[in-house]
Amino acid sequence: MRFSPLVDQLMEAFRVLPGVGPKTAQRMAMHLLERERDGGKRLAATIEQAIDEVGYCQRCRTLTEAELCVLCESPRRDDALLCVVESPADQLAIEEAGGFLGRYFVLHGHLSPIDGVGPEAIGLEQLEALVAQGVIQEIVLATNPTVEGEATAHYIATQLNDYGVRFSRLAYGVPMGGELEYVDGGTLSRAFNGRLPFSSE
Amino acid sequence: MRFSPLVDQLMEAFRVLPGVGPKTAQRMAMHLLERERDGGKRLAATIEQAIDEVGYCQRCRTLTEAELCVLCESPRRDDALLCVVESPADQLAIEEAGGFLGRYFVLHGHLSPIDGVGPEAIGLEQLEALVAQGVIQEIVLATNPTVEGEATAHYIATQLNDYGVRFSRLAYGVPMGGELEYVDGGTLSRAFNGRLPFSSE
Repeated sequence: MRFSPLVDQLMEAFRVLPGVGPKTAQRMAMHLLERERDGGKRLAATIEQAIDEVGYCQRCRTLTEAELCVLCESPRRDDALLCVVESPADQLAIEEAGGFLGRYFVLHGHLSPIDGVGPEAIGLEQLEALVAQGVIQEIVLATNPTVEGEATAHYIATQLNDYGVRFSRLAYGVPMGGELEYVDGGTLSRAFNGRLPFSSE
Repeated sequence: MRFSPLVDQLMEAFRVLPGVGPKTAQRMAMHLLERERDGGKRLAATIEQAIDEVGYCQRCRTLTEAELCVLCESPRRDDALLCVVESPADQLAIEEAGGFLGRYFVLHGHLSPIDGVGPEAIGLEQLEALVAQGVIQEIVLATNPTVEGEATAHYIATQLNDYGVRFSRLAYGVPMGGELEYVDGGTLSRAFNGRLPFSSE
């Protein structure tokens, strides 16, 4: 059934959002038109403004509308420790886990020669310039544990090898609170190879 | 963690959508900013335009930006049969189920004296004017099977009693494909009271 071209267009437009299929898009369109016209107007204006104004932090390349992001501006973070992530969402996940007090660098992707994504597209010149300042002592290569993420981590460690920086990678193993039965084979064999000494004392 | 005020505002703005909590809002904001700036711009423009232009059909009160909606314009529907629903979403559900070939009237709510929703707010004067034209022979009162929906159906049937129109209500009973075990008691006792003759011939 079609209400009218414009209502249909609205339902269709919502499908650009992740995880939104036809049913959810319809519910969103109905909700805004029936009950939330003010909130809908605000949403439209905010999307518009954010897309126009939000760019990358000049230092760490995370999303921000300012020149430097909140974390890069903070005087409380450890300048000697840098965590390299593929996306702002990864950065957010690490921040929410807590415990890391260094700074970040966001690649916005990973190396992917097939798709034409080379070192410059993920900001590696900028990363090298940052490392060349001589303050960073350890780089945590927190790219995803995928083939592309691993390859990107290796490439970065190779390229920046001459700066005397230590590189590290997140530990692989079984996830906390999970059940071994449901852990995939690759993860399980990695966890076996990386097993740790344990004592009951 | 905060990226920047504007990114936070964007995450917050998405929460106006139904079923969108903080995590989903964050994923939507990241998705638009990282991968779908064009689609996001289109979404914002379409929301804006739809909220500005979409109003109610002058005949049936469903959502449309035209004077009359597609269904009211259609010459193929049965003018003698009118289905009264609480919302455009209910109308959509009935149309998608198929089988109903009459016309609709959308209340946009139900009577609710406590919230100050009286007969005029749900368009009952307009409905009466429609019925007074003398073409409608049956009105299916397809308001929700809730206390408010029932009360609204009763009110409408009482008010329009003098026009010689037949009134009907959707059948109550166990849903198709469901398991009796999981059907609530109210529905089950309704289904018992309304049990139908059955023969194996």
